[in-house]
Amino acid sequence: MRTLADIGEREAIRSIQRLVTKGAHDSGIGDDCAALDLGKEYLLVTTDMMTQRTHILPEMTPYQVGWFLVAINLSDLAAKGGTPLGVVLSLGLPRKTSERYLIDLMRGADACVTRFGTTIVGGDTKENPEITLCGTAFGLVKKTEFMPRLGADPGDIVAVTGTLGKAGAGYYALKYGRYQYLAKGLFEPLPRLKEGRILAQRHCVTSSMDISDGLSSSLYQLSEMNHVGFEIDRPAIPITQGITKISKTRKGLDPLEVALQFGGDYELLVTMPEASFEPALKAFRRSGTALTRIGRVTRKREIILINGSWRTTLQNKGYEHFKHHFFS
Amino acid sequence: MRTLADIGEREAIRSIQRLVTKGAHDSGIGDDCAALDLGKEYLLVTTDMMTQRTHILPEMTPYQVGWFLVAINLSDLAAKGGTPLGVVLSLGLPRKTSERYLIDLMRGADACVTRFGTTIVGGDTKENPEITLCGTAFGLVKKTEFMPRLGADPGDIVAVTGTLGKAGAGYYALKYGRYQYLAKGLFEPLPRLKEGRILAQRHCVTSSMDISDGLSSSLYQLSEMNHVGFEIDRPAIPITQGITKISKTRKGLDPLEVALQFGGDYELLVTMPEASFEPALKAFRRSGTALTRIGRVTRKREIILINGSWRTTLQNKGYEHFKHHFFS
Repeated sequence: MRTLADIGEREAIRSIQRLVTKGAHDSGIGDDCAALDLGKEYLLVTTDMMTQRTHILPEMTPYQVGWFLVAINLSDLAAKGGTPLGVVLSLGLPRKTSERYLIDLMRGADACVTRFGTTIVGGDTKENPEITLCGTAFGLVKKTEFMPRLGADPGDIVAVTGTLGKAGAGYYALKYGRYQYLAKGLFEPLPRLKEGRILAQRHCVTSSMDISDGLSSSLYQLSEMNHVGFEIDRPAIPITQGITKISKTRKGLDPLEVALQFGGDYELLVTMPEASFEPALKAFRRSGTALTRIGRVTRKREIILINGSWRTTLQNKGYEHFKHHFFS
Repeated sequence: MRTLADIGEREAIRSIQRLVTKGAHDSGIGDDCAALDLGKEYLLVTTDMMTQRTHILPEMTPYQVGWFLVAINLSDLAAKGGTPLGVVLSLGLPRKTSERYLIDLMRGADACVTRFGTTIVGGDTKENPEITLCGTAFGLVKKTEFMPRLGADPGDIVAVTGTLGKAGAGYYALKYGRYQYLAKGLFEPLPRLKEGRILAQRHCVTSSMDISDGLSSSLYQLSEMNHVGFEIDRPAIPITQGITKISKTRKGLDPLEVALQFGGDYELLVTMPEASFEPALKAFRRSGTALTRIGRVTRKREIILINGSWRTTLQNKGYEHFKHHFFS
């Protein structure tokens, strides 16, 4: 009898996709969020589960666990241009969990929702032998402003918000005991809701997703879905200063590698027609967040990293285990 | 340091409720679903988590686990008069889980959503040492048709849909190895969506909830929330034939006790003005489901079981562990 370990999660997810009945009016399958037709708008829904053993580092405070659980769900809404309506949490907790842990976790979750203009509207607590937390976020987006994963065209430019490598910097800061304030980048990601809205309102984005598993993995996912390739300009990639700092103290730690492969940054990766980029950049100024052009969509289905005259195929080593949606 | 086992879930939930920021336009806190203001409608959202050790009996097939996970969430929508929009599932599964298990679980979940006119629109799979399943259902209801928990008035009549004791009958059928076909009543509950819509469209219901933890527990919850009491007519309670059958083979198994205390029936418990009952009953005929008047709302905050001239206070022994919402 085959087990999930034998077939791997991707095959398991494919067999789920095959057997689940499809809705008549739904869109967004294969996307960051489910998108349900409400007439002029889509209702966006996304869900994520975290488990102590596989998703929660021991250095993470309960406040950060709560923040993270909310943030990763809001990030999926952000990538579709959505405005959050609310979040529900299901908390599976062992009986020996301290009251303090629960309170701090909820404080972190509440801090994150209120920071991003929404609320926790309900939930469920259950006894569980292992801390298992499930967050579901929902939001709205006008159909005309929905930013799908599908739509990248050869010739479009590729851009990312913010900087990459923040989560990796946090991880290595804790690992090496240097610059430990960087852990915030790993444990308290900032969902790019405001930035997603700026892009959505401009109707310029041809495809969009959040970079949860690393830039490399995200590019591979967009490539597969859109049947396109990418040329990425290596010097243009906005690498966070934190990882550059840490790498100076540790031989063999390559900031570029971290920025490309580590994941956990929850920035937005978007494509748009070349003519749209400068106006979008201008609109971004008031947001306080960078928008950086890092490359171009190509017809040929390969992902190339370019540095002057040097060209190499980008490796896909993203953390596959980190996040597995049936439909994304 | 106090643990959740020390303080109990109810106190834990109260402290969560205190510290979570409330939304400006949200309604339905303390209710089966969160209800979010979408203008003319509420978006209803409800979430439930199930764990192998505490919620899944060994006799339950994977198909039934999937059905159950969906059904208990749809039942919360039904109790508010909602029409489902979709369901998302987060599945935490051990690596050794068989592919067959996952497929059968999803078949059961899909069978339940399609039976009730909706679809599974997304989800997430994660590795977890223990099978931990989280379902979130969302739906819509016109604000004028929303059936809250809060609103029961002294003088209203109390009614239930269908029959009670089906889940208990299933449990004892398995336990005693008799009439095992009754297990379906325990493992494949039928959310009363159609019945909820009939009641909602008539605008007659003053309060409504689903009976997940037993009639007794549900009446106590409505009593606490509405500051009212109930007089319940013992002979009027619609007890399923299944439990009567089994009780004939087992001394000490009281069908009334099972109908009142066992829970898991997922029927609707509603209150309405006396004059509304007969027309509602007429409207129910086409549904094929019974609607039974079982008592009356009283001003005095006590719950009395009446059998002719015999009166006794109803005990509250419902399965508190079975379902714990922050807000319901």
